[in-house]
Amino acid sequence: MLKLYWAPQTRSFSALWVLEEAGVPYEKELVDIRSGVQDTPAYRRINLMGKVPALRDGDMIVAEQGAVCAWVADRFPEAGLAPSIDDPKRGAYLRWLFFAGNCIEPAYMQKFSGWSTVKSRAGWGNYELVVDVLDDAVKEGPWVLGERFSAADVMIGGGVYFGMAFGVLPERPSFAAYRERCVARPAFQRTLAIEQEAASS
Amino acid sequence: MLKLYWAPQTRSFSALWVLEEAGVPYEKELVDIRSGVQDTPAYRRINLMGKVPALRDGDMIVAEQGAVCAWVADRFPEAGLAPSIDDPKRGAYLRWLFFAGNCIEPAYMQKFSGWSTVKSRAGWGNYELVVDVLDDAVKEGPWVLGERFSAADVMIGGGVYFGMAFGVLPERPSFAAYRERCVARPAFQRTLAIEQEAASS
Repeated sequence: MLKLYWAPQTRSFSALWVLEEAGVPYEKELVDIRSGVQDTPAYRRINLMGKVPALRDGDMIVAEQGAVCAWVADRFPEAGLAPSIDDPKRGAYLRWLFFAGNCIEPAYMQKFSGWSTVKSRAGWGNYELVVDVLDDAVKEGPWVLGERFSAADVMIGGGVYFGMAFGVLPERPSFAAYRERCVARPAFQRTLAIEQEAASS
Repeated sequence: MLKLYWAPQTRSFSALWVLEEAGVPYEKELVDIRSGVQDTPAYRRINLMGKVPALRDGDMIVAEQGAVCAWVADRFPEAGLAPSIDDPKRGAYLRWLFFAGNCIEPAYMQKFSGWSTVKSRAGWGNYELVVDVLDDAVKEGPWVLGERFSAADVMIGGGVYFGMAFGVLPERPSFAAYRERCVARPAFQRTLAIEQEAASS
């Protein structure tokens, strides 16, 4: 049985969402990050970064949000969450899967923290560039690969959803419409319900 | 024929290295980033971020260093650069593949720029944590998955190599020994020769 190490309202949201999209059985272990349990030796054997999410399948452990999404999508191909390796869309799929952690995450931190970067120096360029590229990725839709929903939308959708929730992403019709399409998915609604139940208990 | 869009002494190093490790035919197009060609509409159709690397295979384009490594490793399984999806090492493989861009890249930028972060807030935690986790990843060796070299070492090895070259990674025996193992690989040497020839022409 898959086990997800997770905490509500953290970067483990997309890991929970991708499991709900995959529709496979899994159990959850809530990591009470307010208690600091993520920094104990026991949890650091699961993820040395002392972070959620992490996903265990027997001896296999995968950490980093994007890596969890990549693993789930390829491990359960019947869910249709990833183009196969010989599909021309595999390139765009992987690109957006990596873009979320490589570019959206640090761009948000830059904006929150008021850091300045020059485009040529930072891997993500700068906040403004990332926002424009993200806009381009979601504006045509319905999904970043076009008609086909994929685990890349779980990562990009998580980025847009939290970016709007925290006000770090500018208000644009493209972001609002994409967010709405994500939120309307039954698996997103189940994820939200799980998170809200955990947060209120 | 695969085509790599690339520039010497940039983040496209690992993309070049992984193609040399795969041993598959490819052609290179040097993107003269000093001229600003990466920001022209023509190049931005290849990678809207205006960044190298990008890799084309017919209609397929993949950008982001980690995504290029992931694609090459899965597309050419005979090169043995990735554990298969049912291998328990697939989790650690994906984790380190994502860790490079998610954590090493912004941690280096943080150190270069003197930014401060709190662990719970940034996806990468902070610079000191990333350095310690990276140390743990490479210290046993020879590779991040143990005996087996993989595309994850191309990403992590690129991070260690450039981190030491730029002095952003502290001097530790574990980093020096891992760097040496990477540099000793014939594919690394070929990559270095290609880079040096391009840089001096």
